[in-house]
Amino acid sequence: MLCLACPTNPEWIPVAVANPDLILLDHAHCEKKAAFFALTMINRYPNRTRLVREMIDLAAEELEHFTTVMNELEKRNLTLGRDAGSDYAKALHEHLHGTEPKRLLDFLMIGAFIEARSCERFSLLAKHAPTEEMRALYRSLFESEAGHYRLYTDIAREYYPHEEVKQRLLEFGQIEAEIVKGLANKPTMHG
Amino acid sequence: MLCLACPTNPEWIPVAVANPDLILLDHAHCEKKAAFFALTMINRYPNRTRLVREMIDLAAEELEHFTTVMNELEKRNLTLGRDAGSDYAKALHEHLHGTEPKRLLDFLMIGAFIEARSCERFSLLAKHAPTEEMRALYRSLFESEAGHYRLYTDIAREYYPHEEVKQRLLEFGQIEAEIVKGLANKPTMHG
Repeated sequence: MLCLACPTNPEWIPVAVANPDLILLDHAHCEKKAAFFALTMINRYPNRTRLVREMIDLAAEELEHFTTVMNELEKRNLTLGRDAGSDYAKALHEHLHGTEPKRLLDFLMIGAFIEARSCERFSLLAKHAPTEEMRALYRSLFESEAGHYRLYTDIAREYYPHEEVKQRLLEFGQIEAEIVKGLANKPTMHG
Repeated sequence: MLCLACPTNPEWIPVAVANPDLILLDHAHCEKKAAFFALTMINRYPNRTRLVREMIDLAAEELEHFTTVMNELEKRNLTLGRDAGSDYAKALHEHLHGTEPKRLLDFLMIGAFIEARSCERFSLLAKHAPTEEMRALYRSLFESEAGHYRLYTDIAREYYPHEEVKQRLLEFGQIEAEIVKGLANKPTMHG
């Protein structure tokens, strides 16, 4: 699926399905961090006008979904609470090239893979969640994550030769798969 | 005007009017930083649900204006370029209380004063800019900054006694006025 080199461990599914509150709380923070990431990309590459404009739009869309998830949290009488951080995202960042021009490509890869893995996991939740209301929510999030994955890879292909993007997607696919295989199947989007 | 204890030095006006490119470039970064600031408030106060929701909406609105300013920059064939940072904003942050509960109030004051000063300066630009198109752009930005100033002070009054908010607005007004009096009248929004 997408660029992913391994599927999520099936043991994650019942844990996630049994803990929708924790999944939603974690995902609210994911939307926030995705907006932060997009804004940080603008600080890193302020002269890449297409990137800047796409990142503004992406951040705005992440905030729209943040509100969607906040609405769901409020229905459940939950407050957002502290962001526990994500070992998965930290581990991906360890594989960034230290210098340009490869560093920008790697940032785009990290964006793409985080979105792709969220997308894959929402598709699992959209299949396995117990109510149609929950399945519909997960389906809508699945679709938007897929769009964001495409956006990051489209931008990569604008700035780098297609062959180089394809190669780095394969390499990052292996990196990400190794990280995912080490996850503890916790009830978070990338746990 | 608003909570401001001193007007902008009139010497700033011709400098700013003569350099619309620099003003717009700087303001694009201001919109971005305002969105960052709002998201950072969510990280700091994730259990204050009203604050979280208002900060999501505010960040989304800042991004909308960021796009408006990017459109104007593109018309002028300008790319965003590096953010030079703002000594004004840094100086305001030096007056933050180190501990809660006063620290949150001070963050809201900083948000309010940055918006109020932008608002005052856009009202000057809306009066003095040479073309009706520029005046209209500055007017629209003036109005949104005024709304953001009100938002920060409204949130302050939700979480703190009105008398305490009034007192801290007066104190921060003096602090901000001292900072503004030391500015070098450069062609930036808070220069």
